[in-house]
Amino acid sequence: MSPAVRKVEALGHFVRVEWEDGSESRYPCVWLRDNCRCPLCFLRSAGARRMPLEDLDVDIAAREVALADGKKISVTWPDEHASEYEAEWLKKRCFSEEARAEMQADLFLPERQYWGSDLQLPKIPFEEVMHSDESAYKWLCTLKKVGIVLLTGAATRQGELIKLGHRIGFLRLTFYGPTWQVQDKADANNVAYTTGKLSFHTDYPVLHHPPGVQFLHCIKQTTAGGESEVVDGFHVCNKMKQQNPEAYQILSSTAVNYTDVGVDYCDFAVHGKQRIIDIDSRGQAVRINYNNATRDAVFDIPAEKVRPFYAALKEFNDLLNSAEHKFTYKLEPGDIVTFDNWRVLHGRRSYPSGPEVTRHLEGAYADWDVVLSRLQILRKGVLNRD
Amino acid sequence: MSPAVRKVEALGHFVRVEWEDGSESRYPCVWLRDNCRCPLCFLRSAGARRMPLEDLDVDIAAREVALADGKKISVTWPDEHASEYEAEWLKKRCFSEEARAEMQADLFLPERQYWGSDLQLPKIPFEEVMHSDESAYKWLCTLKKVGIVLLTGAATRQGELIKLGHRIGFLRLTFYGPTWQVQDKADANNVAYTTGKLSFHTDYPVLHHPPGVQFLHCIKQTTAGGESEVVDGFHVCNKMKQQNPEAYQILSSTAVNYTDVGVDYCDFAVHGKQRIIDIDSRGQAVRINYNNATRDAVFDIPAEKVRPFYAALKEFNDLLNSAEHKFTYKLEPGDIVTFDNWRVLHGRRSYPSGPEVTRHLEGAYADWDVVLSRLQILRKGVLNRD
Repeated sequence: MSPAVRKVEALGHFVRVEWEDGSESRYPCVWLRDNCRCPLCFLRSAGARRMPLEDLDVDIAAREVALADGKKISVTWPDEHASEYEAEWLKKRCFSEEARAEMQADLFLPERQYWGSDLQLPKIPFEEVMHSDESAYKWLCTLKKVGIVLLTGAATRQGELIKLGHRIGFLRLTFYGPTWQVQDKADANNVAYTTGKLSFHTDYPVLHHPPGVQFLHCIKQTTAGGESEVVDGFHVCNKMKQQNPEAYQILSSTAVNYTDVGVDYCDFAVHGKQRIIDIDSRGQAVRINYNNATRDAVFDIPAEKVRPFYAALKEFNDLLNSAEHKFTYKLEPGDIVTFDNWRVLHGRRSYPSGPEVTRHLEGAYADWDVVLSRLQILRKGVLNRD
Repeated sequence: MSPAVRKVEALGHFVRVEWEDGSESRYPCVWLRDNCRCPLCFLRSAGARRMPLEDLDVDIAAREVALADGKKISVTWPDEHASEYEAEWLKKRCFSEEARAEMQADLFLPERQYWGSDLQLPKIPFEEVMHSDESAYKWLCTLKKVGIVLLTGAATRQGELIKLGHRIGFLRLTFYGPTWQVQDKADANNVAYTTGKLSFHTDYPVLHHPPGVQFLHCIKQTTAGGESEVVDGFHVCNKMKQQNPEAYQILSSTAVNYTDVGVDYCDFAVHGKQRIIDIDSRGQAVRINYNNATRDAVFDIPAEKVRPFYAALKEFNDLLNSAEHKFTYKLEPGDIVTFDNWRVLHGRRSYPSGPEVTRHLEGAYADWDVVLSRLQILRKGVLNRD
């Protein structure tokens, strides 16, 4: 049921709206004028503001306000320009802390479920995700909330990730190509392309904007070894912040050099700086940037801070590897593991090398912008929201 | 000339190196052990660390250090593992403030030349950039330093930007496609696709990671109107920080909602939050995220902070538009303007609409990671550095 307005009045630089349920909202006049929805001020086909900031009077006040049948308020401005606002549109944009939190949650779906070794790995058949919007919605919702979902039953040949990319929109191209083949290679340009153990890491922290989501499609699996390990980095960060706030502070404030030089999709020489743990204004981890293989020998901190940094990193690394936190599983041919590369660190146990390729994964990346955009579109369709 | 070592000694948790020029460097033992270059610890083909952090002793001390002919030092560790380090490699990684600053400057080329209405727009022929490494190096160097370079004499047909993308590596795909056509369109899904004036903006601040570099290729130009305007956003930020630190503080700390919903390369519903001015730890602007058209009506700040925010934004907008700061020019068919989309804000004057398309630009994006990678590779080739 859409909200109804009982009363509206101009109060200096604000317009006050009294709702039928007795609550009230106050809207700054400058914000109302800035967000006039008339065709002169707003280009409906683009959903974008036309009125330039140059034309906005920061000190504007409404000359007249009026209520039309409880569902709409109209404002007349000193220059005679008239604006209309739907009650429902206004209610959602109320400036109260509660209303703002609700709106932001609606836009960014921040809910998280943390996990440790007790993870019940969420599984959905690949074909369902490809053909059912409900399943695709469930997939992306869970990916956002839990950070990892296993899609099962894909074909055991290259190309399935390209299809999955089309399902969400498009994949993220990097120097390793649109998709990339994880297998033992001669003169490997990346430690992943060997049979060696891979410690817990996030992919590609050398980039300014590391890939948000990673897909790994198992095409062939070795009999011995090659198990996958994952850990919830945000959960471990919460633990570390409590147990060792100093170490957490070091890892969330020290910029670490990364480097990646080689040839693949094209030649590349990438250098970057990232904190191991990126935090938001409340100190909550929002992105882990940790790959010990590409951490540069170049290190831009004073010599006396080096040992404390390593101690903090080791503390984090130990927590990641604790039996309580990590989850071990083995991909089967046809499995596609999809996970949040900003949150979930992944690793692999070593496996025997030989003349034949005994293990083959195809990998690809997607940006959270693309994934969340698809999630919002699916959500609207599935929940039939407007 | 490569540096020579006069003396090396173990000092507890450090190794002290005395250079032939009389200067000295101190290297933490844990850092030395972590960066052992032997084939067990380091995968040369990938230029990446093999030794897992699990195997690193944070409190390690060298058991023995030795000097080999002044060009190399060797360290023996308590477990008999032996590491060797080239003098030149060590010297570059010295932990002194000066050496670190030099190394970081070498990796990230932070030098900037600020400009205002006095800009001498740098110009290089498109064909030279395509065929000469020296010209391509000059192009990207100037793009990094000045923030804008005009490439001239490209063909007046679509496709030149795809070639330019191959020249650097690859372009950045977005919801608007691999490249996009800026011209007057019916039911425009973006304000750029009209004949209207475009105020100063950066492109795509709704994305987590807005495109670092933008290319606009003029294929057809209108006789009347359609002039381009650019302004050095970092220069304006420096001014604003001095003149009105409070406004600067507001714009560099307030997260603003952006929104972009529509259909183009595929359907999209993107929501994001960005500060108008992103700053580094020293308060220096590192990215402007400002597009008034896609700034959302949703605004996640308390009502009483709304008017001060608009006042600060208006102050910034006024500075951008001051005659002293902005530079106006008109693209000619065959011109490709290339600019730093994190630094340079661009705009366009309106032009008459009509039944025919009288103005047509093709646009594309690239990430700074890709551009800087190409710049480093060209630099190495041109300067014949190692």
